[in-house]
Amino acid sequence: MTIRAAIVGPTGYTGLFLTELLLRHPGAALTYLASRREPPVDLRDEFPRLHGRLDDELAVSRPIDPQAIAAAADVAFLCLPHKAAMEHTPALLDAGLRVIDLSADYRLRDADVYERVYDTPHEDADRLGEAVYGLPELFRDQIRGAQLVANPGCYPTAAALAVAPLIHAGLVSADRVIVNAASGVTGAGRKEKAHLHFPEQSQAYMAYGAIGGHRHQPEIEQTLEHAAGRPVPVLFVPHLLPIDRGILETIYLDPTPGVDEARLMEAYHRAYADEPFVRVKRDPPNVKHVVDTNCCDLSVRLTGPADRPTVVAFAAEDNMIKGASGQAIQNMNLMFGLDETAGLR
Amino acid sequence: MTIRAAIVGPTGYTGLFLTELLLRHPGAALTYLASRREPPVDLRDEFPRLHGRLDDELAVSRPIDPQAIAAAADVAFLCLPHKAAMEHTPALLDAGLRVIDLSADYRLRDADVYERVYDTPHEDADRLGEAVYGLPELFRDQIRGAQLVANPGCYPTAAALAVAPLIHAGLVSADRVIVNAASGVTGAGRKEKAHLHFPEQSQAYMAYGAIGGHRHQPEIEQTLEHAAGRPVPVLFVPHLLPIDRGILETIYLDPTPGVDEARLMEAYHRAYADEPFVRVKRDPPNVKHVVDTNCCDLSVRLTGPADRPTVVAFAAEDNMIKGASGQAIQNMNLMFGLDETAGLR
Amino acid sequence: MTIRAAIVGPTGYTGLFLTELLLRHPGAALTYLASRREPPVDLRDEFPRLHGRLDDELAVSRPIDPQAIAAAADVAFLCLPHKAAMEHTPALLDAGLRVIDLSADYRLRDADVYERVYDTPHEDADRLGEAVYGLPELFRDQIRGAQLVANPGCYPTAAALAVAPLIHAGLVSADRVIVNAASGVTGAGRKEKAHLHFPEQSQAYMAYGAIGGHRHQPEIEQTLEHAAGRPVPVLFVPHLLPIDRGILETIYLDPTPGVDEARLMEAYHRAYADEPFVRVKRDPPNVKHVVDTNCCDLSVRLTGPADRPTVVAFAAEDNMIKGASGQAIQNMNLMFGLDETAGLR
Amino acid sequence: MTIRAAIVGPTGYTGLFLTELLLRHPGAALTYLASRREPPVDLRDEFPRLHGRLDDELAVSRPIDPQAIAAAADVAFLCLPHKAAMEHTPALLDAGLRVIDLSADYRLRDADVYERVYDTPHEDADRLGEAVYGLPELFRDQIRGAQLVANPGCYPTAAALAVAPLIHAGLVSADRVIVNAASGVTGAGRKEKAHLHFPEQSQAYMAYGAIGGHRHQPEIEQTLEHAAGRPVPVLFVPHLLPIDRGILETIYLDPTPGVDEARLMEAYHRAYADEPFVRVKRDPPNVKHVVDTNCCDLSVRLTGPADRPTVVAFAAEDNMIKGASGQAIQNMNLMFGLDETAGLR
Repeated sequence: MTIRAAIVGPTGYTGLFLTELLLRHPGAALTYLASRREPPVDLRDEFPRLHGRLDDELAVSRPIDPQAIAAAADVAFLCLPHKAAMEHTPALLDAGLRVIDLSADYRLRDADVYERVYDTPHEDADRLGEAVYGLPELFRDQIRGAQLVANPGCYPTAAALAVAPLIHAGLVSADRVIVNAASGVTGAGRKEKAHLHFPEQSQAYMAYGAIGGHRHQPEIEQTLEHAAGRPVPVLFVPHLLPIDRGILETIYLDPTPGVDEARLMEAYHRAYADEPFVRVKRDPPNVKHVVDTNCCDLSVRLTGPADRPTVVAFAAEDNMIKGASGQAIQNMNLMFGLDETAGLR
Repeated sequence: MTIRAAIVGPTGYTGLFLTELLLRHPGAALTYLASRREPPVDLRDEFPRLHGRLDDELAVSRPIDPQAIAAAADVAFLCLPHKAAMEHTPALLDAGLRVIDLSADYRLRDADVYERVYDTPHEDADRLGEAVYGLPELFRDQIRGAQLVANPGCYPTAAALAVAPLIHAGLVSADRVIVNAASGVTGAGRKEKAHLHFPEQSQAYMAYGAIGGHRHQPEIEQTLEHAAGRPVPVLFVPHLLPIDRGILETIYLDPTPGVDEARLMEAYHRAYADEPFVRVKRDPPNVKHVVDTNCCDLSVRLTGPADRPTVVAFAAEDNMIKGASGQAIQNMNLMFGLDETAGLR
Repeated sequence: MTIRAAIVGPTGYTGLFLTELLLRHPGAALTYLASRREPPVDLRDEFPRLHGRLDDELAVSRPIDPQAIAAAADVAFLCLPHKAAMEHTPALLDAGLRVIDLSADYRLRDADVYERVYDTPHEDADRLGEAVYGLPELFRDQIRGAQLVANPGCYPTAAALAVAPLIHAGLVSADRVIVNAASGVTGAGRKEKAHLHFPEQSQAYMAYGAIGGHRHQPEIEQTLEHAAGRPVPVLFVPHLLPIDRGILETIYLDPTPGVDEARLMEAYHRAYADEPFVRVKRDPPNVKHVVDTNCCDLSVRLTGPADRPTVVAFAAEDNMIKGASGQAIQNMNLMFGLDETAGLR
Repeated sequence: MTIRAAIVGPTGYTGLFLTELLLRHPGAALTYLASRREPPVDLRDEFPRLHGRLDDELAVSRPIDPQAIAAAADVAFLCLPHKAAMEHTPALLDAGLRVIDLSADYRLRDADVYERVYDTPHEDADRLGEAVYGLPELFRDQIRGAQLVANPGCYPTAAALAVAPLIHAGLVSADRVIVNAASGVTGAGRKEKAHLHFPEQSQAYMAYGAIGGHRHQPEIEQTLEHAAGRPVPVLFVPHLLPIDRGILETIYLDPTPGVDEARLMEAYHRAYADEPFVRVKRDPPNVKHVVDTNCCDLSVRLTGPADRPTVVAFAAEDNMIKGASGQAIQNMNLMFGLDETAGLR
């Protein structure tokens, strides 16, 4: 049996990567492209790399019609902006589709936090309780049975995988987590902007946004609170790299007394021994080695003076794959009982 | 005596590079920034790299008021788009300023050609006869006495320097010149565009525009006709490189009978022996070696089967320096009797 | 049935890409890594992106032992340098393996040409007659039955696909073909070199090698001679782009009398209508759109003055995929009766 | 009077940038290139961008002969590796030259620390007391009178400028300073290495070296101890950016009680109000805006929960200019009574 997949809002970068992953997937097929755009858009014109790889009927977008989508597909990937996603989710679920939402709309369990962070009312708050946060390494069992999966943000995926096991094992303090993060430019979306014009962004490197005010900070805090059993304040400082894809997070933590480097590494090895997509490494990871894979590479060090050591954890991933579209496929595989790694090797 | 310089339209990349060159110039000073923008623009906000290097009074743009500019400056650099440049030039000249126009408005001597290529009427056609084409290596003497200099296009500068001596010496046929050109993205201007969004242009390479229809083609033909004494059809194919700055042109020519490589190189050496900014090289030039200099590097080879050899000429320059703002400074130096290399070493 | 594949010499870039393609291939499996290196090399240490994706037993290289390889595999991909390839090929064939050689050793049918171009004796010249040149679009039927396939060079693949149909249809002159080519740096191999040190090659662009003397020039000429039925002199000028992967060739040809652009495009459409990996495009292709695909994108224009028009053809491919490892997989698929596109979508 | 300058060891990147800065300097002239290399090296062959800009006599290196250098020059810039620098410094000083050493040999005041960090005996330890640490913003007066200046490391320059005023003003704790740093690849030197091969370093980003064990860490600690009046443990984590030039440091500090953001900014403004090369900015700085300038851009924020806020300071500089050769020129200007900004605008 082949899982039939629809993409709703396919004209951004997550839509492109989902399309390419589905084209390669041995157990799933892309069957419907739904877009709000009028006139309809031929995805091959948007992304010339898809020429010859999508047939004529599929390539042209159709309306976001839940009944029509449900007739053609088993699962809908939502690649819409936040706010637009929650406008369409209820009807897609009602039509019988399972939904994997790549926006932020169902990630935060607390509607008040959502409304503060995204500065807009949550129009489907009742459903927050049933949405499952789609980070398989932490929530695999819930994902299997979910109708609605909130696919995690790119930065939060890496941060959660790096920090949760250390906090959970009590090896680091939950009082402060500093996440110094750097991302490739696809993370900023496909819409051109003055500061992302090639001659401005080439050979550039900077922090961006309100320092300590990025929307992914509360999402990281939510997952770490789940691991710690109590609130974990995160200081998140994102930077923009002059590359297309890839995230590296360098994370500074305070060890609990008596912790040594071996125990930190052991916590990673124990947490991820059977995980197909988390790789624990001796050396600090390099975004180059994870790009175009669904892997998140981790490493951890204990350093600094003996009387005030610091834990430095590293996490690298492809923001478009493990940080978005690849993880969405991993979630689909789990939801439909496929091999979790299908199409992601 | 210090030459006082105004920049009209300083918010594009040529304005930035002119500003930086003038800040370093030992015999000239930037005294006036004129812009059509309302409200006035602080150039330090446009280009943060200028912070602390322009004082408060100078940094904020003032109106394009010819009398005020003439009171503050001896020369006006026009960094306006074509069409806007010829709207302002007459009044600036009338106010007593000498004008160096970096747009295309006064480059083509034939108004009909201009109107066809730029698809707009020429509103100051009478002045085309007195404007001097600002390529010092070919027109140094005229530049010295000019009131109005038309600063050459970036591509035409490299093409003319590479081809004119070979045609002039009768070493290559004037029947066809193929210019395969590649430029960094600053050449496309400062306005963001979808295909110049960093993730689209990074790791990219393509030809662009109407093949054989680029606006610089007639400008190259005009200069080569001057060198040949008869029309020279040019086929110009521009490509976009994933770099900030730099142009390389690889030029294919048919040698006249009996020509060998030594004679080709000799033509270059003879033409440029005393030129401070043209470097004749044995090896093909690299844009890396000319960026941030006012140099144009040339090399030439004869290759192919003995019965149908081909001349391959190479020219490299920084499109922003020798291809625009540096050449404008070189022209200013000539016009005001300064050392031609002042501020350009 | 799963085809079992060995890679001989897997530590270069073609080895890495072959490994990744085989990991994704639905009908083939990587079963043996053979290397001359002593001590044996763990490919996961060479290429950290393979961590967790190769199991322990497979990952460590074993000697180039033809009997052992033949016991474990049906086909051997040779990723050795030229010269080394022909040392190992006879024994691998004798052991019953089918061989796909990614080096240049069996590409040129004439041992004299090989010896001149590669400046070394050909030690297996008798076999040149039975080696099949592995360009499926031109030699599909021969590849199907071949024991030994000479996988084409990266530049020759693009050039042949762009020019052969035009020459074959008599639309362009066979008297001179100018191939202005540009390649990403993986094409120069994995060994570090002074001019490929990141700060030298970043933001750089240049022609390289002996102009008109690149080793791929005779290989292109051989294929075009096959298409034309007579010798076709090629002038090949390669340039190095500051990108990882991708080739773009801009090719200048003389049209035969009366040819128009429509007939040129028609020749492409006719030649490639049923080809899964050649895409004929209206717009000039961009390397960005072919990277990480097995596609070669083509476009063609007629331009210049009516009395001396020029044909400009464009070809873009990923030098590592269609230009090397992807084409090798395509050849394997043909040789073993698999779907030609298996593992390459 | 023109200051005559020699460069000892000019074939690395600091030598190139010094050469270019000296060529532009209005009050200094490059008069001698001294190298250990045999046969002598023509610097124009090492760096083709210098062709036509150095005359024949100067361009070819001469031996490191202190008497000959002293006859030709007033000041010697040492661009040798550490260890080699201290072998030559005594004789150069004895010959009457003033010396600006760009290596690490005279930066650390404590020979024991040097020997531990650089794992080699210090052969000129007696002179450590008289060498002046060449960071003008902190040690201007001592530099003026110095015979021997130890030009600071690239990372330590940015870190000291960002942190010293905050520590000195008592606004942040001296108990721990976390410096998350990222540098362009010129910082790794000119010698090619496997991991700096273009296809490995392009589109890459990673931490490198022994985390917490970089040689610049004790140098930063030494300067901060000077500012604090007591030892300041620094945790320094360097990363490599896929760019040529530029450093950005993101620095995490604990504020002392009651500190707010305004007081942090005020401390910067007070410390650097009259500094020509330190720019205090509202927005986090971008390496793009400092490259090719001698500026260090600073910004600072207070963020995080009210009961445990964190100070985030940013510092950006060009590692080759303010981080090396530009700062060396600034030091020369001070030592010889020139305008401190001469040649650096």
